[in-house]
Amino acid sequence: MRMQFDKLAKLYGGALLNDVIPFWERHSLDRECGGYFTCLERDGTVFDTDKFVWLQARQVWMFSMLYNRLEKRAGWLEIARHGAEFLRARGMDDGGNWYFALARDGRPLVQPYNIFSDCFAAMAFSQFALAAGDDEARRLADRTYRNILSRKDNPKGKYSKALAGARPAISLAMPMILANLSLELDWMLDARTLDEVLDACLDEVFTKFLDPQRQILHENVAPDGTLLDCFDGRCINPGHGIEAMWFIMDVAERRNDSGTIAKAVEVALHTLEFGWDGKCGGVFYFLDSQGHPPQQLEWDQKLWWVHLEALVAMAKGYRLTGRKDCWRWYRKVHDYTWRHFPDAKYGEWYGYLNRRGEVLMPLKGGKWKGCFHVPRAMYLCMREFEKLAR
Amino acid sequence: MRMQFDKLAKLYGGALLNDVIPFWERHSLDRECGGYFTCLERDGTVFDTDKFVWLQARQVWMFSMLYNRLEKRAGWLEIARHGAEFLRARGMDDGGNWYFALARDGRPLVQPYNIFSDCFAAMAFSQFALAAGDDEARRLADRTYRNILSRKDNPKGKYSKALAGARPAISLAMPMILANLSLELDWMLDARTLDEVLDACLDEVFTKFLDPQRQILHENVAPDGTLLDCFDGRCINPGHGIEAMWFIMDVAERRNDSGTIAKAVEVALHTLEFGWDGKCGGVFYFLDSQGHPPQQLEWDQKLWWVHLEALVAMAKGYRLTGRKDCWRWYRKVHDYTWRHFPDAKYGEWYGYLNRRGEVLMPLKGGKWKGCFHVPRAMYLCMREFEKLAR
Repeated sequence: MRMQFDKLAKLYGGALLNDVIPFWERHSLDRECGGYFTCLERDGTVFDTDKFVWLQARQVWMFSMLYNRLEKRAGWLEIARHGAEFLRARGMDDGGNWYFALARDGRPLVQPYNIFSDCFAAMAFSQFALAAGDDEARRLADRTYRNILSRKDNPKGKYSKALAGARPAISLAMPMILANLSLELDWMLDARTLDEVLDACLDEVFTKFLDPQRQILHENVAPDGTLLDCFDGRCINPGHGIEAMWFIMDVAERRNDSGTIAKAVEVALHTLEFGWDGKCGGVFYFLDSQGHPPQQLEWDQKLWWVHLEALVAMAKGYRLTGRKDCWRWYRKVHDYTWRHFPDAKYGEWYGYLNRRGEVLMPLKGGKWKGCFHVPRAMYLCMREFEKLAR
Repeated sequence: MRMQFDKLAKLYGGALLNDVIPFWERHSLDRECGGYFTCLERDGTVFDTDKFVWLQARQVWMFSMLYNRLEKRAGWLEIARHGAEFLRARGMDDGGNWYFALARDGRPLVQPYNIFSDCFAAMAFSQFALAAGDDEARRLADRTYRNILSRKDNPKGKYSKALAGARPAISLAMPMILANLSLELDWMLDARTLDEVLDACLDEVFTKFLDPQRQILHENVAPDGTLLDCFDGRCINPGHGIEAMWFIMDVAERRNDSGTIAKAVEVALHTLEFGWDGKCGGVFYFLDSQGHPPQQLEWDQKLWWVHLEALVAMAKGYRLTGRKDCWRWYRKVHDYTWRHFPDAKYGEWYGYLNRRGEVLMPLKGGKWKGCFHVPRAMYLCMREFEKLAR
């Protein structure tokens, strides 16, 4: 298999360095106002200039990470700095909460209602601080991280439309992102904080969100883990579950905790099995745990990130456990993903396919797709296969 | 053509009385807790018991309206009362604002963030007051209507995520629903209020939301009618535009204003032309006015209400103007709609088809589809064709 792994490492590395990253280098920099354009047509033409903080921060993270972990290219650091300066100057309200969206010139457009803006900002400034040796950026990441910890039990705060106490619920997204974010910030956190946060995340995911019979994760449960029989409570987001599992494999690998690795791999495999579209191939976006109609009209679409997260999870799971199931599923998802998502003509990947795998929207970036899932998965899969090829 | 019109009137009347209304009579009443179930599987099985105030109110309106305008069936009045009592007891907060969602037992779940809950409640209690001779219901409709007028310039209020003043916008939904609602409440409003509100609605729709070149309506514009070059500002919702135009035909017919009728018909025709899917048939759900990728992932789906509103608009437009275009488009939409949406096996209509016209979700009711658009369009088309057959 070694040659096969080596070939795969080269496939991912080549796509990352010769296709995906150059696409964003070419099309996304706003030289006039700072920050990045993320709404890009198929050929890279900018079609909207609003700046969504999730995507601004993710691109800062991406270029900083490549600089830190792959190669010290001055150009990458400059691109990261280009976004970091814009975000640092314009991204926060007076309380240090990160807005959701800014106008092209940086004027705030949408309130800091979404705690994930803060999560991606913390990731961004942590990586950027490492890359640039910028201590102010480190302090900003640290302050943002503390703010997230203080808000995490009521992340929507005053922006919640639910009546307080009517049907309390917690979301998988919170412990899942915290696990990943805390590992990202490990270099600036004291060991005890890090361990406490990670323990709490793992415990919450496995005791509250996991369906122990079916080995799949619910998106929303009551605070004590009880199932909620409503649209949100029945919602299964396979891509999210699979992504959460490789975040947890990362935590467990760091701790040499093979029991947790085995659990995470098991759940990722069951989630793929549950979410796979037996008729058309690919992984569904949303399903109802009881088989009822899901709330989301886009439930049957095939999204780029879902498939990329599955590739990362299966490659990592295979390297960590050697389970044949992982390799079988890796191949199955690989075949679907590489056949349907890359755009041979203009580069980068399509984001949104319909159930049949046809392009639903030709954009390369928008309000939710930016310079993140594609290059991150390229980088991570490259690394997994490099290790496997050794 | 008279025989053809007569046949169509009978088609709609038969579907209304022998299929659609019996489906809701059979499956939607919650005899235990009051109100209606609206989340119904293909065969009518209840799959979720949350009570969404839009849909509760619309069903009260529907059964009251049939009682008032079609036939004094005691059973219909009882079904209307069943929902009206539930809503009256549980639907409002202390300030008289209507919640968005209630639990099965009536406990409020979701804040009154959405002014359209109030709009449908006012419609419901107005029709119910007429049907039941219930003066308390009339006062409730009146109070709710005044509350809507006072909130209409800032309908989202404290629930808005946009930063105040950052990029002010107004939405087509507001003047459009106010035109329809005000006609509904004409019997309880003084003539001057009614005329003022209707004048303002028509003026706003035609001077601010209308693209005079293309004769289609924008969903969101700046308060002075300037175009906004952002996702919301580029959004075209053809079904919404078409529905707004038959609301306005109603207002104009009442005023014997043939100029406004001609304008509304023209816009409805252009909107259908713009929104029609030349490849697969049917009307798209969302389009971008500049041809960019729309924000909504469900943009290419074919929704029941869009097609029903188009049938109403074309039948009405044809009766009022005799324009051949209206008849041509009526036939085209009729063929698509009657071929794809009705469920011959279990009754009622599917709500959500994919672009190709295949059933995307087999539900008959959910969070947004209830006992409203199908029976309302059946009733209205029946009436239009009865008039045409005379």
